[in-house]
Amino acid sequence: MYFFINGPYTDYYGYQKSINTKLEGLFMTQINIDDIKHIAIGASLLGAGGGGNPYVGTLMAISAVREKGPVQLIEPTDVPEDALVISASMVGAPAVSLEKFPNGNEYDKAFPLLEETYGQKAYATYPIEAGGINSMIPIMVAARRGLPLVDVDGMGRAFPELQMTTFAIAGHPVTPIVITDERGNNALVNTIDANWAEKIIRTITVKMGATSSVAGDAVHGKDLVANGVTGIISLSKQIGELIDSASDFETVDAALTQLLQITKGYKLFTGKITDINHTTKDGFNFGEVTIEGFGTFEQSFGSVSFQNENIIFKVNDQVLATAPDLITLVDVDTLIPVTNEELRYGKRVNVLGLPANSKWRTEVGIATVGPRYFGYDIDYVPLEQLVEKYSKMGE
Amino acid sequence: MYFFINGPYTDYYGYQKSINTKLEGLFMTQINIDDIKHIAIGASLLGAGGGGNPYVGTLMAISAVREKGPVQLIEPTDVPEDALVISASMVGAPAVSLEKFPNGNEYDKAFPLLEETYGQKAYATYPIEAGGINSMIPIMVAARRGLPLVDVDGMGRAFPELQMTTFAIAGHPVTPIVITDERGNNALVNTIDANWAEKIIRTITVKMGATSSVAGDAVHGKDLVANGVTGIISLSKQIGELIDSASDFETVDAALTQLLQITKGYKLFTGKITDINHTTKDGFNFGEVTIEGFGTFEQSFGSVSFQNENIIFKVNDQVLATAPDLITLVDVDTLIPVTNEELRYGKRVNVLGLPANSKWRTEVGIATVGPRYFGYDIDYVPLEQLVEKYSKMGE
Repeated sequence: MYFFINGPYTDYYGYQKSINTKLEGLFMTQINIDDIKHIAIGASLLGAGGGGNPYVGTLMAISAVREKGPVQLIEPTDVPEDALVISASMVGAPAVSLEKFPNGNEYDKAFPLLEETYGQKAYATYPIEAGGINSMIPIMVAARRGLPLVDVDGMGRAFPELQMTTFAIAGHPVTPIVITDERGNNALVNTIDANWAEKIIRTITVKMGATSSVAGDAVHGKDLVANGVTGIISLSKQIGELIDSASDFETVDAALTQLLQITKGYKLFTGKITDINHTTKDGFNFGEVTIEGFGTFEQSFGSVSFQNENIIFKVNDQVLATAPDLITLVDVDTLIPVTNEELRYGKRVNVLGLPANSKWRTEVGIATVGPRYFGYDIDYVPLEQLVEKYSKMGE
Repeated sequence: MYFFINGPYTDYYGYQKSINTKLEGLFMTQINIDDIKHIAIGASLLGAGGGGNPYVGTLMAISAVREKGPVQLIEPTDVPEDALVISASMVGAPAVSLEKFPNGNEYDKAFPLLEETYGQKAYATYPIEAGGINSMIPIMVAARRGLPLVDVDGMGRAFPELQMTTFAIAGHPVTPIVITDERGNNALVNTIDANWAEKIIRTITVKMGATSSVAGDAVHGKDLVANGVTGIISLSKQIGELIDSASDFETVDAALTQLLQITKGYKLFTGKITDINHTTKDGFNFGEVTIEGFGTFEQSFGSVSFQNENIIFKVNDQVLATAPDLITLVDVDTLIPVTNEELRYGKRVNVLGLPANSKWRTEVGIATVGPRYFGYDIDYVPLEQLVEKYSKMGE
C-alpha cells in the first residue's frame, strides 16, 4: 500500500511535516534489505547464544525479499481480533543449521496444510523467538507468501524448547503444528499439551537430521498483545542499527553503554575464550565455555553453560545470571553478538546480562524456563539482584 | 446384507442344497466371536513369533463385536476398483502391547483424518499383517466404524518394519499415515518413501511409549489382488480352528501333520527352552532363544534370533530357516503358537518352518526382508532347500 503525497502535510499532533518525513514514516513499516541485516544482528543478541547464525538467516530472508519485494511490518494491534497469525521457524541444533538450512519450500507446504486444519487463511506471520535464524525465517515466509509480518514474538529472546513461549504458558496450544524437512517429508502434529508437542517434534527433528522447519503456534489477533512479547522486531532492528554503527561512536564503550541503555542490561564480564565444550545431542547443542578475564576482570574466570541458548553464567563459581534472563556474548571490539556455534578459542568477548520480559519472571515462567528446568540446582534470582549482590562482594 | 431363502436351492455347480447349508454359507462371511478367537490363534502362528499377543488382541476385537455386532468379511474382488481400503494396526514392541493397548478411540480419530486427506471415505479396512494383535485391530475398527473387513493383508505373516509390505515393494506409499496414542496425541505423516515412513513413525512410537496406533497403507480396490496377500484371514481362521480342535485328533502329531499340510510347512525341531535373551530397544523387541532338543533332536541345540518376529533359526549353528520364510514356535502338547513375549524357560516347543508368500521370494522381497537386511551375513535360501540339505546331512 503506497500513499502519494504532493506537499507538506499536518500530522496527528498538528505538526507540519515534509513529504520526506512522511515517506520515511511509511517506509519504516517495510522491511528492506538493510533492515534485515540489522534485525538479524539485533535478534542474535537477543538469541542469548542460540537462535541460530544471523548470516545464514539473512541470506534466506534477503534472497526472498530480493525476489518478492519488501515485507510489511505491522503492529499486533493491526491484526483483526479473529485473524490467524502463524509462526514459521526452524527447530533443532543451531550448529547443524549452518550446513543444513531450509530452501523455503518447506513453509509453502506447511502453511496451506495448517490453514486447511484451521479452515482459515493466515493473515500474517510472526517469529516465535528472537534469534539469528528464527527472526529471519518469518521474513522469508512473509516475502514468499505475500503476508505481513507482525512485530511480536513468543519469547522476547530465544529458548531451546517448543513449550517455552509466553503463548504456551498463557495456555495457547503449540499444535496443530506442521514439521517438514528439505527432502519433502512432513507431519501435521496434534498433541494434548505443549510438552508433548516438544517431545514429538524433537524426535522427528532428530530423525530428519537435527534440524527441521515448522509452522505452528497459530494465535488469533486478540491474543497477541495479551500473551506475546510486542515490539521485538523493532527492538532487534534498533539494537542491530546501533551495533552496525558502533564504529561511529567515539569509543566502543560509548556504543556499549547505549546498547545497555536500550536493553536495560549489564556488562557482567570481559575476557578471552580459553575452553569450549560443545556437543550435538538429541537435537540440541549442549556445551560450556570458559572465559579468562582481563582488564578489571583479570584473575577471574567466567563460565557459560548452554542448551542451544545460554542458561547459566558464573564468575569464579558465583552465579551472576540464569535463564530466563538473557546471557549473551558480544565481540569486545565490534559488539557483534557471538552465537554458540561461533565460539572460538582466543575470541575476546563481553558477557552481557539482559533482564527477561516480565512474562517470564512469574511462577509459571520460572518453572518453564528457570535454571531448575534445565537441571541446575539453583533458584532463579533476577539479574539485577545478582549483579547488586556481586558488586557489593568487592566492597 | 441378509438373504431370506424359503426352500432348497441349486448352487453354482448344480447341487441341491438345504437352506441351512446356504445360511451357513452366508454366515461364513461374517466374523463372530468364535471366529475372532480362531483368527487370533491362526494369525499368531503366521506372526512368526511377533505380531503381538492373541489374547490381548481378541479382548479388543470381541468387546467391539459384542457392542456393535459381527463384522462382514469380504473378498478383495468385492472391493470396487476405485474404493479406498485403509489399514489399522499397532506399531511398536509387542511385549509392551501386553500392558499398553489401544482403546479404539485412536482409530476413530485417525480414520476421518486420513479420509479427509484422500477426500474419500474408507470402503473397508484390512490388516497390514497377520499377527495376534494386528489381525484383531482391524476387526475392532470394522465393528466400531461399521466397515467390512477385506480378506487380504500386506505381508502374509508379520514383519517388524513399515516398509516391509507387499504393497510397499510394489511401489505403494505407506503414507499418508496417521499415528496416535491413547492420550490423544496424533500426527498425520507424509514421507517421500516407505523407509522414511518407518523412521518417522518409529521415532514417534518410541516417544509415545514404545507402542502406537496407526491408520495408513491405504490401497484402492484394483490393487488388492495384484499386490496384497489374499485369503489371509480365512487361512488364519482355518489354522486357528485346527489348533482349537487339536485335542479331537487321535494324537497331537496327527493334528500337526494336518497343520503342516495347510501351511505347506515343516517341523524343524522339538525341544525345551533353556535360555532367553530379550530386550526392548528403539521401539522393537530384540532377542535370542535357545532350545535344547529332545526326542529325535536329543543332543542338538536350536536357536532363534528375533527382531519382534523370528528372523533366523539354526540347529547346531546350521541355518535351517531365515526370513522371509516363517519361523514359528508352537507348544508341543497343544500346538498353540508361542509368541516371543511369552517365551518361558522350560517351555516345550516345536519349531515350525513355513514358506513365505511368493511375493517375498523375489529380488526386491529378499532385499527388503531377507537375512542381510536384518544384519546377518547369510544369503537367503528357500526353506525347502535348507530342509532338504539338512535332511541329507545325516545320511
